Amino acid sequence: MDSRQRLIETTLGLLRSQGLRATGLNQILKESGAPRGSLYHHFPGGKEQLVIEALRAAGDVIGARIRDAVEGERNAATALRRFTDAYAADMRQSDYQQGCPIGNAATDAAATSPAIRQVCDEVFASWERSIARSLERQGFESKQAAALAEFTLSSIEGALILCRARRSIEPLRRATQHIEVVLSTAQRRKRRR
Amino acid sequence: MDSRQRLIETTLGLLRSQGLRATGLNQILKESGAPRGSLYHHFPGGKEQLVIEALRAAGDVIGARIRDAVEGERNAATALRRFTDAYAADMRQSDYQQGCPIGNAATDAAATSPAIRQVCDEVFASWERSIARSLERQGFESKQAAALAEFTLSSIEGALILCRARRSIEPLRRATQHIEVVLSTAQRRKRRR
Repeated sequence: MDSRQRLIETTLGLLRSQGLRATGLNQILKESGAPRGSLYHHFPGGKEQLVIEALRAAGDVIGARIRDAVEGERNAATALRRFTDAYAADMRQSDYQQGCPIGNAATDAAATSPAIRQVCDEVFASWERSIARSLERQGFESKQAAALAEFTLSSIEGALILCRARRSIEPLRRATQHIEVVLSTAQRRKRRR
Repeated sequence: MDSRQRLIETTLGLLRSQGLRATGLNQILKESGAPRGSLYHHFPGGKEQLVIEALRAAGDVIGARIRDAVEGERNAATALRRFTDAYAADMRQSDYQQGCPIGNAATDAAATSPAIRQVCDEVFASWERSIARSLERQGFESKQAAALAEFTLSSIEGALILCRARRSIEPLRRATQHIEVVLSTAQRRKRRR
C-alpha cells in the first residue's frame, strides 16, 4: 500500500473509533508509519483535506455495500436486513469501537468545519439515492422513495449511536424491524390507491 | 450563578456544539470565567467528572421536557410531535450548531471513556422509560412499549445528525411522521389481537 493510501486508511479507522476532533495529524502519522513529507505532498490542504478524502473513500466503500445489498434483492426491506445484519456483526467484532465514520464526523463538524459537514451531507445523500432507487424499483414514486430512504438512513445512524452507548446490537436489530414496518405500511397504502 | 453551575453550563454548551473530545478544560475555564481553583474544588475528578455531571444535568433537563410533553398528552404520537417541533425550532435558532449533547458524547466516548459511555446509556434509558410509560398508558404491554420507545429515541438521534449535516429540519420532521406510522401500526395490530 502506498503512503497516500495508508494515510487515508489510518485516518478512516480513527474517524470511525474516536471521531473527527480527537484525530490529529501526529497520531495519523504515527499509526500509518507514513513520512511527514508524504502527508503534505499528497494532502497540501492538511488535516481537512485528508479527512475529506477519507470520508469520501468510506462513503464509496459503504455506498458499494448498500448498492450490493439493494441490487441483489428485489425487496428493499430484505436488502436492508442483509445490510444491517452485516453491520451488526462488524460492530460486535470491533467490540463497539467502530461507529459510522460519516455520522461521527457530521456530529463533530456541523459547528466547526463547513467543508467537512458538506462532504458528510453529500455522502449521506448518495447512500439515500441507492436506497431510494431500490424503493422506486419496488414501485414507489420518487418523492416518497426519497423520504423513506432518508428515514431509513437516519434511523440506522441513530441506532448505531445507541448500539455503541449500550454495547449491544439490539437497537440496530429493532430499528431494522421498525423500518420494515414503515416500508410495508407505505407499500400497502400505495396499493390501496 | 455560582462557579460550579457556570462550569457545568459552559461544558454542556460545548458538548452540544463541538462534542466531547474537542472540549478541553482550558476552553471551559475561559468561557465560564470560573477560577481554575474552583474547577478542582468542585470537580476533583477533572474533565471526566465535569463532563459526567454536565451530561446528567442535560439528561435531567431534556428528560423533564420529554415528560412534560408525554404527560400533557394522552396520545404518545402527538406528544412526540410537540417535543420534536420544539427541538427543531431550537436547532434552527442555533443555526444547526447545537446537537444532542448525549448523542454527541456517546459517539465520542464509546471507544475512549467507559464511564462517560455508561452515563450516556443511563440517560438514554431514562428518556426511553418516560416514552415507554406514555405508551403503556396508551395500552401497550411493557416489552413492546420499551422497544417502541427505544426506536423512537434512536430515530430522533439519527435525524438530528442528518439535520446538522444537511442544515435542515426536514429529517426530524420526516422522522416524526414515520415514527407516528410505526406507533399507529402497532396500535392497530394490538387492537386486532
